[in-house]
Amino acid sequence: MTALTDVLDTLASRADDSLADLQAFAAIPSVSAVPAHAQDMERACRWLMERLQAAGPLTTERWATPGHPAVYAEWLGAPGQPTMLVYGHYDVQPPDPLDEWQSPPFTPTVRDGRVYGRGVSDDKGPLLIAVQAIGAWFSVTGRLPVNVKLLFEGEEEVGSRHLPDLVRANADRLRADFVLSADGGMWSAEHPSLTVRARGLTALEFTVTGPATDLHSGRHGGSVHNPLHAISELVAGLHDRAGRVTVDGFYDGVQDRPPHERDAVRRLPFHDDAYLAQTGAPAVHGEAGYSTLERQWDRPTLEVNGLWGGYTGEGSKTVLPSRAHAKLSARLVPGQDPDRVRTLIETHLRTHTPPGVTLDLREAAHGARAYAVPHDLPGLQVARDVLTDLYGQPPLEVGMGGSIPILQTFQEVLGLHTVFFSFAVGDEDIHAPNEFFRLHRIQEGQRAWASYLARLARPEDHPA
Amino acid sequence: MTALTDVLDTLASRADDSLADLQAFAAIPSVSAVPAHAQDMERACRWLMERLQAAGPLTTERWATPGHPAVYAEWLGAPGQPTMLVYGHYDVQPPDPLDEWQSPPFTPTVRDGRVYGRGVSDDKGPLLIAVQAIGAWFSVTGRLPVNVKLLFEGEEEVGSRHLPDLVRANADRLRADFVLSADGGMWSAEHPSLTVRARGLTALEFTVTGPATDLHSGRHGGSVHNPLHAISELVAGLHDRAGRVTVDGFYDGVQDRPPHERDAVRRLPFHDDAYLAQTGAPAVHGEAGYSTLERQWDRPTLEVNGLWGGYTGEGSKTVLPSRAHAKLSARLVPGQDPDRVRTLIETHLRTHTPPGVTLDLREAAHGARAYAVPHDLPGLQVARDVLTDLYGQPPLEVGMGGSIPILQTFQEVLGLHTVFFSFAVGDEDIHAPNEFFRLHRIQEGQRAWASYLARLARPEDHPA
Repeated sequence: MTALTDVLDTLASRADDSLADLQAFAAIPSVSAVPAHAQDMERACRWLMERLQAAGPLTTERWATPGHPAVYAEWLGAPGQPTMLVYGHYDVQPPDPLDEWQSPPFTPTVRDGRVYGRGVSDDKGPLLIAVQAIGAWFSVTGRLPVNVKLLFEGEEEVGSRHLPDLVRANADRLRADFVLSADGGMWSAEHPSLTVRARGLTALEFTVTGPATDLHSGRHGGSVHNPLHAISELVAGLHDRAGRVTVDGFYDGVQDRPPHERDAVRRLPFHDDAYLAQTGAPAVHGEAGYSTLERQWDRPTLEVNGLWGGYTGEGSKTVLPSRAHAKLSARLVPGQDPDRVRTLIETHLRTHTPPGVTLDLREAAHGARAYAVPHDLPGLQVARDVLTDLYGQPPLEVGMGGSIPILQTFQEVLGLHTVFFSFAVGDEDIHAPNEFFRLHRIQEGQRAWASYLARLARPEDHPA
Repeated sequence: MTALTDVLDTLASRADDSLADLQAFAAIPSVSAVPAHAQDMERACRWLMERLQAAGPLTTERWATPGHPAVYAEWLGAPGQPTMLVYGHYDVQPPDPLDEWQSPPFTPTVRDGRVYGRGVSDDKGPLLIAVQAIGAWFSVTGRLPVNVKLLFEGEEEVGSRHLPDLVRANADRLRADFVLSADGGMWSAEHPSLTVRARGLTALEFTVTGPATDLHSGRHGGSVHNPLHAISELVAGLHDRAGRVTVDGFYDGVQDRPPHERDAVRRLPFHDDAYLAQTGAPAVHGEAGYSTLERQWDRPTLEVNGLWGGYTGEGSKTVLPSRAHAKLSARLVPGQDPDRVRTLIETHLRTHTPPGVTLDLREAAHGARAYAVPHDLPGLQVARDVLTDLYGQPPLEVGMGGSIPILQTFQEVLGLHTVFFSFAVGDEDIHAPNEFFRLHRIQEGQRAWASYLARLARPEDHPA
């Protein structure tokens, strides 16, 4: 284990550089959803390629897509050893609402043992951990214990829309034994965890139109249907009083987990009071008959992510607007097909659109099925062992409310399962103002990734 | 009538100047609701004072308020003759949504016999008509047939919030026989009309807050209440299936007009098909049991003017937002008190706020009671006669869906009734993109105002 020990020492000696690395990377506003940031996406892509080249003798390539490019790198100098495909993404969510950030979203700032900035937790910090661990192995030994391929995309936050085609076109290059994902995140900072399930996703947008132009609400109010009223009726009608989604067929194929698994989830160290303190919500809310963790991991949901229309500026404007808009997304569980669920929601909205307004529907993102990692996957067992060593306790095996559309792609196109090995934590306000990443998790993550590479190697070539 | 004939000839010869006048005035973006336009408000105020001074020997004053200033002018050189107080406003609505304007809102542009621009119809065009008619009388005779006071405020579009105090403080200066309002508007371009009733107004804003910060909708969706769902439930619950407002006590004191008046409204030349063609709405909608005109003139309404929360930009963002916002206004009829109705709405919202979110309420504008002009008011009779002469048919006597809060002020503080004598028309997209004013109405309005001054004068001093 000498080599690994040296690698860990090297990583410890580079703590300041690692933080500076992340601050430089997160200073680039690589917002994939907003066309005005196209140049920033390109800058982030190039920054990442240079960072990989600095890490060691990796073959590094820019893989163009019709959207934002992906970065690919590989080192295949360990014949006979396993090959792992590392996944991550260098794009980030839009930073709105800007005025709620305590420090500017793209000026990564350290406060109280955390670094604050858009993307530091999702996914630039966790992605760099993998690169830094690999870099330390190269520095110490000039090589890696196993073969490594890295694929970092630039469209995760917009549904990985071009990744399936890219993976399909490069299926031979991407051949591996499994995927180790630097995206994802652990369930809490106190309890090491491995995510073994993730919900799927489907999303759509719709517009409700009443009059052809905005009207004066004094003159016309009460005599034509107000699109803001109509869209509120549509949104309010998506759930019943028991918190169940009312869309016909939405729950088809959805099954409760067996009682012993439901019991296991209930025994996890999770308390609604602590959850409310963390989120600031005044009460939990959701589908009757399920606990909070079940609502997050095991039940499908339908959420409005944006709703707008009429006058939203300062002061008052007595307008009856022509249009109102909404963005919706559904989280899916095993048994649900994304396209079918989207169609069901669309049918529901069409059926319930009141007279006096018209409805326009748009697909908002490619769908993703729900996912589960096989319990006995070797890459998962290595992850269990590494985390048990690092934290002195076996990791919890948990679900994930969010979705990673690429899971489906890796499984369907490459036949590969994915192990989540991110050191982000679920409370780090990703997709919200004041996203942060814990500095001590950078060190822990680097140690874990460095150890993972050593443990994955077969004994005959194990660095001794 | 020689003098009046000369005045009318003078106005006809000044048609180009009158249009240029309006274009210059409407080029100033005097948006009272938006603090960034404070300097433009001041420019518009000064422009208007200079325009009044150019019209003739009027005493012109800038009346400061804690908000935007009012402009006051007077000519009291006709002792023994009636004194009328002319009302109008030089502030305009915000121009949003900007991208729906065919020509820039503050570049008044002539197309097809109309001038397009924010404020040309509400109220800069109608206001200038009064000033231009007075100017022509001064040019021809050096005087006016009656005494005239003019009060043009800068806060009509934000609820005339400082006008009551201003009128109270200057009650002696403003003493008059009645108010002739250059604000308001006729019911259609084909049928001359006089507005003899107006609905009142009350307005409020509210915010629904769930979690303390925006959350990831994948991770947290389905386990805390989404403020966008909660606000939709609140808005959807404001009306029942029959289009009636569900707020407890909302209709207290509201009475149907007597059957013969309801019949008269039904006989007016109004057709739902033409109304739908004009507004572009796919169907009429509203309180069951009432016609469209009754819904607009005689029934109270509750409308959402703005609704927003979550991600509203391009692309998708899977956010469960911390807050959602709405702006509401209610139109009131005789028998309803604005403050009481606002309180009832607030109580309703508080009572119906679901667990899992909290509610914050704010008053959005000062309220106004509904109003009705006495049938036999002399100033109203003069208006009837002038319009009958000008258009060859007696004017329709109609209601008004919108509200002019100053009606209440003039009645309560000065004891004065108000006659609406605006040449705006109800289809001119005020408060909406592509607001316009008909050029031929400038000429008609000037003739009408010039004639009005002559007819209002008592015979002994009547220009002969």
